[in-house]
Amino acid sequence: MNTHPEQQARGHVTAAKGFKAAGISCGIKGGGVRDLALLVCERSASAAGTFTTNRFCAAPVLLSRDRLRSGRARAIVVNSGCANAATGESGIRDSEQITRDVAGELSIDSSEVLAASTGRIGPRLPVDKIRKALPDLVGALSTNGGRDAALAILTTDTRPKEAITRVRIGGCEVTIGGMAKGAGMIHPKMATMLAFITTDAAITPECLRIVLRESVERSFNCITIDGDRSTNDSVFALASGLAANPLIERADSGEGVIFSRALGEITAQLAEQIVRDGEGASKFIEITVRGAKDAHEARRLGFAVANSSLFKTAMYGREPNWGRILSALGAADVEFAIDDIELTLQGECVFSHGAPRDVEESKLKPLLEGKEVRVEIVLRRGNASEKILTCDLTPQYVELNKT
Amino acid sequence: MNTHPEQQARGHVTAAKGFKAAGISCGIKGGGVRDLALLVCERSASAAGTFTTNRFCAAPVLLSRDRLRSGRARAIVVNSGCANAATGESGIRDSEQITRDVAGELSIDSSEVLAASTGRIGPRLPVDKIRKALPDLVGALSTNGGRDAALAILTTDTRPKEAITRVRIGGCEVTIGGMAKGAGMIHPKMATMLAFITTDAAITPECLRIVLRESVERSFNCITIDGDRSTNDSVFALASGLAANPLIERADSGEGVIFSRALGEITAQLAEQIVRDGEGASKFIEITVRGAKDAHEARRLGFAVANSSLFKTAMYGREPNWGRILSALGAADVEFAIDDIELTLQGECVFSHGAPRDVEESKLKPLLEGKEVRVEIVLRRGNASEKILTCDLTPQYVELNKT
Repeated sequence: MNTHPEQQARGHVTAAKGFKAAGISCGIKGGGVRDLALLVCERSASAAGTFTTNRFCAAPVLLSRDRLRSGRARAIVVNSGCANAATGESGIRDSEQITRDVAGELSIDSSEVLAASTGRIGPRLPVDKIRKALPDLVGALSTNGGRDAALAILTTDTRPKEAITRVRIGGCEVTIGGMAKGAGMIHPKMATMLAFITTDAAITPECLRIVLRESVERSFNCITIDGDRSTNDSVFALASGLAANPLIERADSGEGVIFSRALGEITAQLAEQIVRDGEGASKFIEITVRGAKDAHEARRLGFAVANSSLFKTAMYGREPNWGRILSALGAADVEFAIDDIELTLQGECVFSHGAPRDVEESKLKPLLEGKEVRVEIVLRRGNASEKILTCDLTPQYVELNKT
Repeated sequence: MNTHPEQQARGHVTAAKGFKAAGISCGIKGGGVRDLALLVCERSASAAGTFTTNRFCAAPVLLSRDRLRSGRARAIVVNSGCANAATGESGIRDSEQITRDVAGELSIDSSEVLAASTGRIGPRLPVDKIRKALPDLVGALSTNGGRDAALAILTTDTRPKEAITRVRIGGCEVTIGGMAKGAGMIHPKMATMLAFITTDAAITPECLRIVLRESVERSFNCITIDGDRSTNDSVFALASGLAANPLIERADSGEGVIFSRALGEITAQLAEQIVRDGEGASKFIEITVRGAKDAHEARRLGFAVANSSLFKTAMYGREPNWGRILSALGAADVEFAIDDIELTLQGECVFSHGAPRDVEESKLKPLLEGKEVRVEIVLRRGNASEKILTCDLTPQYVELNKT
């Protein structure tokens, strides 16, 4: 991990060789706020994506998923402020029109242009505003444009989310960078937000797809803000191949494993940044489940706690009300024995062998003053363990989402 | 429905022949607030109950479920302010001790005394305070004590919840009355809160059990405040038989159907009162799903919307953001076709045939000014329909639950 201040100012999604980006205001949000981004690779990149499992998936999701079947892409156009979801046939035509215009501006084939949108569900996309801004957007493309793009994709986020790492593969330096947006409506079983990962690694589309899916499963699919699953969530990965490393063709090869670990580091960092900037969040909460029968069970228990409004509000109130954790676990439809659960809050074991441990509340309360909460749940059912990340539920969350 | 003001002042759970109740303060909550209730039948009543499906069910739930196997009971002792849940073996001994003392005071068998608790999960029950108060509690028993009992079982509720109805069965007047407490931690798949129903109908325990389960399924199990399922939720029904109607032995007999409908009316009324008094709620929301394949599917879709934090906060903000309803439906893991969904908000159809209807937001916004919200979702998959009740999510909910 070597991030120079200069690199940071330019953004991480354009750090790998072959990528340019831009982020400008086209007037969707108003007030001159950046709301339109473009990410471009100078050559046809190996490309992969994972998308929301919501049945009402947005028009740009349908379009991108379809075009990614080829395993190749050159550009992604992203707008914030309007989701272009639940907009029917006309929404699909809108996304097609915009990618066609981008292709025209870049003199590339429109089948290699992907799209993503985030914002309100229902309204039509302001196509004219976006089309009019495209020449300026393309004109602004730069290898220093990553930060501008990272700003343009945000909605209620309070800060941009970026990550970068470098590894050596086959004697060559390979860079992986990324940007993401999150805030609310974050939940697993999907890409859960927008993330864009770029790398100059040489890797086949098939291998990139496998490695991306694994790393999403262990990062973005292990976080939750409010249990809602959005219509638009997408994770994209583009690989330019310009690092000139020996082509990675298998995820389980030596090179594949190195690349996979590095990619996992990037997605984990972006996922954590999303949770730390959750809508209205005042606390970062890490829930570890160990000793579960399998990963599915561990995740089910972890998410039962992470999505409990009562647990989340208690954490906001700095109340060591661990009974709400047990209650959430008990409602999770997992057939554990009460006697086999051990519950630890901020390092203090509060419940084991079917009964509360004698821990004074006056000892626990000060432990919740900080910004981080660690919950550990240990079962005696097997060897699976999972870590789920979430944040607290605050009055600010409600205020942010009431419009 | 004939409720005289006088009857209302005395409470509804003691309206049926044979029942007395009391509600006093024993010092669990402090400040002289009522926190201990007793409901007694002058003879051994037919008795039934439905209980939480939470794996961490509380000590009084374990005790009551066990004792109800006999189908008979005479008394229920209830405390608020402490749930006696996740308290292990000692919690069970505490509940046993209290029911033994109640039995002693009433000179009845302790196997006919049931128990319920509500409040914080984790802490030991303040047994000494409760035991010391029992002589006063028994001394206060009265046919006019229903309202006091209805007050003593409350936690964050802002008002007591009571219902009463009278029907003629076999030429005899039969009364059914009830009281309940709700507020937060309300969700289906369980009794979902505390409710106590009394009747002077003559009915077998088996028949009472069947009819109670059906009416709970269509009332308390169709409401949600925050998606959390508590460790303590219980619904009890006691039938004294003093109305002297011909014994109801079958739920599908003429008399059984009349009784079942009347009981259903009581549980529906109590369930609605619970939602209207949901923690921090400013709006009552009714979500109707029609045209689903089966009841399970209809409920799944209805609850997906009812438990969406984003939908609930939008309703709090009077924002006609119906895209959040579609998004919640799309995440519900039901395989409907987008084109087959019709969505109506406050009587205005906003989405049909896979696309938004052209309804101005300026027309919708004023419709959300009132205290009631009606959402209708119509599919074309079958004939099942269900109605789910919930409330909005407000900053007050968070403030109420942070301790």
